[in-house]
Amino acid sequence: MVYDADVGASKHVAGALGVPVAASLGELLNSDAIDAVAICTSTDTHVGLLVAAAASGKAIFCEKPISLDLAEVDQALDTVAAGGSRLQIGFNRRFDPAHRAVRDAVAAGTLGSLHLVRISSRDPAPPPIAYIEVSGGIFLDMTSHDIDMARFVTGSEIVEVYARGAVRVDPAIGEAGDLDTAVLTMRHEDGCLTVIDNSRRAAYGYDQRVEAFGEEGMAMSQNPPAHTATVLTARGSHGSALPHFFVERYLPSYILQWEAFCNYARSGGPSPVAAADGRAPLAVGLAAWRSVRESRPVEV
Amino acid sequence: MVYDADVGASKHVAGALGVPVAASLGELLNSDAIDAVAICTSTDTHVGLLVAAAASGKAIFCEKPISLDLAEVDQALDTVAAGGSRLQIGFNRRFDPAHRAVRDAVAAGTLGSLHLVRISSRDPAPPPIAYIEVSGGIFLDMTSHDIDMARFVTGSEIVEVYARGAVRVDPAIGEAGDLDTAVLTMRHEDGCLTVIDNSRRAAYGYDQRVEAFGEEGMAMSQNPPAHTATVLTARGSHGSALPHFFVERYLPSYILQWEAFCNYARSGGPSPVAAADGRAPLAVGLAAWRSVRESRPVEV
Amino acid sequence: MVYDADVGASKHVAGALGVPVAASLGELLNSDAIDAVAICTSTDTHVGLLVAAAASGKAIFCEKPISLDLAEVDQALDTVAAGGSRLQIGFNRRFDPAHRAVRDAVAAGTLGSLHLVRISSRDPAPPPIAYIEVSGGIFLDMTSHDIDMARFVTGSEIVEVYARGAVRVDPAIGEAGDLDTAVLTMRHEDGCLTVIDNSRRAAYGYDQRVEAFGEEGMAMSQNPPAHTATVLTARGSHGSALPHFFVERYLPSYILQWEAFCNYARSGGPSPVAAADGRAPLAVGLAAWRSVRESRPVEV
Amino acid sequence: MVYDADVGASKHVAGALGVPVAASLGELLNSDAIDAVAICTSTDTHVGLLVAAAASGKAIFCEKPISLDLAEVDQALDTVAAGGSRLQIGFNRRFDPAHRAVRDAVAAGTLGSLHLVRISSRDPAPPPIAYIEVSGGIFLDMTSHDIDMARFVTGSEIVEVYARGAVRVDPAIGEAGDLDTAVLTMRHEDGCLTVIDNSRRAAYGYDQRVEAFGEEGMAMSQNPPAHTATVLTARGSHGSALPHFFVERYLPSYILQWEAFCNYARSGGPSPVAAADGRAPLAVGLAAWRSVRESRPVEV
Repeated sequence: MVYDADVGASKHVAGALGVPVAASLGELLNSDAIDAVAICTSTDTHVGLLVAAAASGKAIFCEKPISLDLAEVDQALDTVAAGGSRLQIGFNRRFDPAHRAVRDAVAAGTLGSLHLVRISSRDPAPPPIAYIEVSGGIFLDMTSHDIDMARFVTGSEIVEVYARGAVRVDPAIGEAGDLDTAVLTMRHEDGCLTVIDNSRRAAYGYDQRVEAFGEEGMAMSQNPPAHTATVLTARGSHGSALPHFFVERYLPSYILQWEAFCNYARSGGPSPVAAADGRAPLAVGLAAWRSVRESRPVEV
Repeated sequence: MVYDADVGASKHVAGALGVPVAASLGELLNSDAIDAVAICTSTDTHVGLLVAAAASGKAIFCEKPISLDLAEVDQALDTVAAGGSRLQIGFNRRFDPAHRAVRDAVAAGTLGSLHLVRISSRDPAPPPIAYIEVSGGIFLDMTSHDIDMARFVTGSEIVEVYARGAVRVDPAIGEAGDLDTAVLTMRHEDGCLTVIDNSRRAAYGYDQRVEAFGEEGMAMSQNPPAHTATVLTARGSHGSALPHFFVERYLPSYILQWEAFCNYARSGGPSPVAAADGRAPLAVGLAAWRSVRESRPVEV
Repeated sequence: MVYDADVGASKHVAGALGVPVAASLGELLNSDAIDAVAICTSTDTHVGLLVAAAASGKAIFCEKPISLDLAEVDQALDTVAAGGSRLQIGFNRRFDPAHRAVRDAVAAGTLGSLHLVRISSRDPAPPPIAYIEVSGGIFLDMTSHDIDMARFVTGSEIVEVYARGAVRVDPAIGEAGDLDTAVLTMRHEDGCLTVIDNSRRAAYGYDQRVEAFGEEGMAMSQNPPAHTATVLTARGSHGSALPHFFVERYLPSYILQWEAFCNYARSGGPSPVAAADGRAPLAVGLAAWRSVRESRPVEV
Repeated sequence: MVYDADVGASKHVAGALGVPVAASLGELLNSDAIDAVAICTSTDTHVGLLVAAAASGKAIFCEKPISLDLAEVDQALDTVAAGGSRLQIGFNRRFDPAHRAVRDAVAAGTLGSLHLVRISSRDPAPPPIAYIEVSGGIFLDMTSHDIDMARFVTGSEIVEVYARGAVRVDPAIGEAGDLDTAVLTMRHEDGCLTVIDNSRRAAYGYDQRVEAFGEEGMAMSQNPPAHTATVLTARGSHGSALPHFFVERYLPSYILQWEAFCNYARSGGPSPVAAADGRAPLAVGLAAWRSVRESRPVEV
């Protein structure tokens, strides 16, 4: 069943697919036919829907970010926790088989104690300026994924962040108060250092790499090419470009994310991506903005 | 709409998905709601269905092999040709983006005139002996895909084949009159040589590689790993295994195959995989069996 | 001809190889048979030898660092400049064919204007503590190579550095006042950001990678494996380890460095690695130490 | 000490390097200062020098082929065997670390019993026609290396060969009675099949790959690029060409070959490349020529 809190587009899609459309949020949340709800609306509606869903007792999937306001996030998460609902946050990249294999190598102890994590995350093209104006900027709309990845891979909280950014791609991004190129150095509770670099425009496609370096070795996820063919001539070798964007690149992770949510909604256990995982990237992202403004490392 | 010429399994799947099930072949072939038919039944029913479909005037997709009997294939294809129906044969690997990029490098002239083609095609596990007993053996049930690939990549007919095989995987395969390991050397009309190697069992997964070598360069498709993560330790680097089998490996090619068929059924033009492409691999496969039996190169 | 300013070891090697050994520095510097001198002694003797060599008018190769004292470096370089001698500094990695191809892609404009540079540089094992006590620490004895690489690849001076380090490998390194794990974020004059990460111990071998990211694309040098063989089994793929250390990894760059020096000594032109290239990594390295001590970004 | 059985060129090189030049073969073979001799002259002088060296009792290294005449080879090897001299044949590729790792995976049992071996061996450019006229043609001057590799990797003798060739590169090669493109299918004593493909001209550089496929897995050596840098743009990825020819590609194998010979000459043990290894490639190469002429598989 679908309830459309936004502009109505999904209602039409749902209708065409034969999915029932709820007349009101209440109808959906009170339906006995439904075990779980997924909040996939625009960011400013998340908190209200989350609180409403928490009251229904259903398992909840909520897209990230929960909100751009940390106090609001805390309140919403407290409400969910008090109600005892199952909650999974939409950090889909945790389900990417390659990034997950990096995390697994860490968790299995193959790399020994961690010393450094490197994350490159570069979009193929910047979003519209209108989006940037309400998104909270690069550290909240883009780096938040990488901050989550750093916590996921290391299993350790971030305690300090230093961020440096630049406007290299498009002056309009700077005029909107945002950055399009950024580097973050973060220190984790366990002493590990993580470096993230971001760009809003990688001419060669969607660049997503994670690397964990520890006392016993290193694990890294690389970019899958669009296909594996290579042409060799006297001028060298030539291979395919990268998949253009997140739908192609992260298709498997989306499928695995929803499988994980279905299992969790049904069987419980620890949340695949817990409430605290929804809060931390916002807290670190806000600290990154402060670091840029004050030109100094900021404690989280 | 579905008509189930086989054991009825697909009827149940269709019902569950809400796809209408035809009570008879005639109902399906006479339905005005249907523009095109896809023959995806077991091999021994192909010719009958093909002839029936040809009479209906609908566009036809037919899985390979059309039949294991060359005379029967010729008769069926003549009937289709006489009726003027559009026909596409199910050689899905032609739509694999990597293999296709190899073909495109040849067709674009990037490699100059072709000298050699190398094809490795190894299944992760042998089929049941019961299948082998009716499949026509390795050259008809497995190598046929590679023979088609050789014709696709070179754009030139095969005029001679020499085949050598062995039973290395399972003696039961030999007892069923088949081989499980094979090497074919083929000569094309334009003088290019193609080497195919096959195995019914690659312990490391589904191995599918195509390589074209010409006067100006070389193009090769490589196996995509299950994921891109690599772990480096003092013992070297460790990467993921290959996707296990054809559904994972060739998912994109199946999607692209059906897109091509839909376009062709609607808009005509040359068949993406024409009638002659359905016949040639059978003719060459039969010649390969003769080559093994007579221990000599055989003209096609 | 060899003059041994150090402990005498090289004198014995030279003798064994039939290379004449000078009885004094003066004999060597006054010899008409000699066109060029190479200063490859321990760091604290560089400045004295450099000044002496400058007076001789011969072309000079000097190992880095020139000195750990910036004022001393400036004085020595002024003397050389005043004398008009040809001077090449020993930053051999500039001659590595892979790193150089990254630089060439930048210089040729293939990547458009640069946004980000990433450099990973990790040694297989830490040096002796006795070395660390006199080396100036990680930023001067190790990162200096990467600082040079950042200037080489971007062609732009470094104007700001923020450094974060940790002792993760060996507490004895910390007790000697040094770090063994470090991340530097640097801003170049042209606005490009460079991130360097260092470790004194990579369990999997000598890890040396350079990556330049710009508006039109990205270029990266990767680690060559010790050999190219891969083994695939049901457990995945297994490849060789990396070459252990700098002699294996950078053999081609050493050969090319000396070819460049011979050409330069004979034919003049711009120095392959000029005096200013010897000074800048020291200035930036000292700023990195200050950044760590004061926990803030430092202007250079 | 050098004795120049050929045109005198090496005499001048030796003189320039300060290596003593023997006035006669006898002077060299009778010198007490010499423990081992290396026969690196043109093929038609090998047998005479081998027999002479055998009489001297010194350890012998002999370049391949020993001779193009099988009877002559047998006589020479009998003489050496009777004299008890240590003999190593110059198949340097056995010492290539990547090919050797493939062999080691076989020998260690990692791949289980072997089913298939694939060898690609393609030169960057054909030799002069004058060389082809005396070399014995492609199967003796080029494929012989790959025949040796097949025996080395499998550890099993070749019992049957089928060869197909073509003139695709240069008609002058055909006029000289030779082929420039060839495919061989060989059967080993243990049932394994080996496929070799050769070309006298690979436009993209020196292509040398070995692949062993067995019941438990697969091992393959790949071509090392000239350097590891890759450039990614919207048009895809671009990497370096292959090393041009055997001196660059096989430098490590030559060094390891001579180290192995020095150890063997000093310490004995089984020959790193024994007399039988010098004979077999000639026998198989001659059978390949017969296979082409008679268009049938030929037993060895």
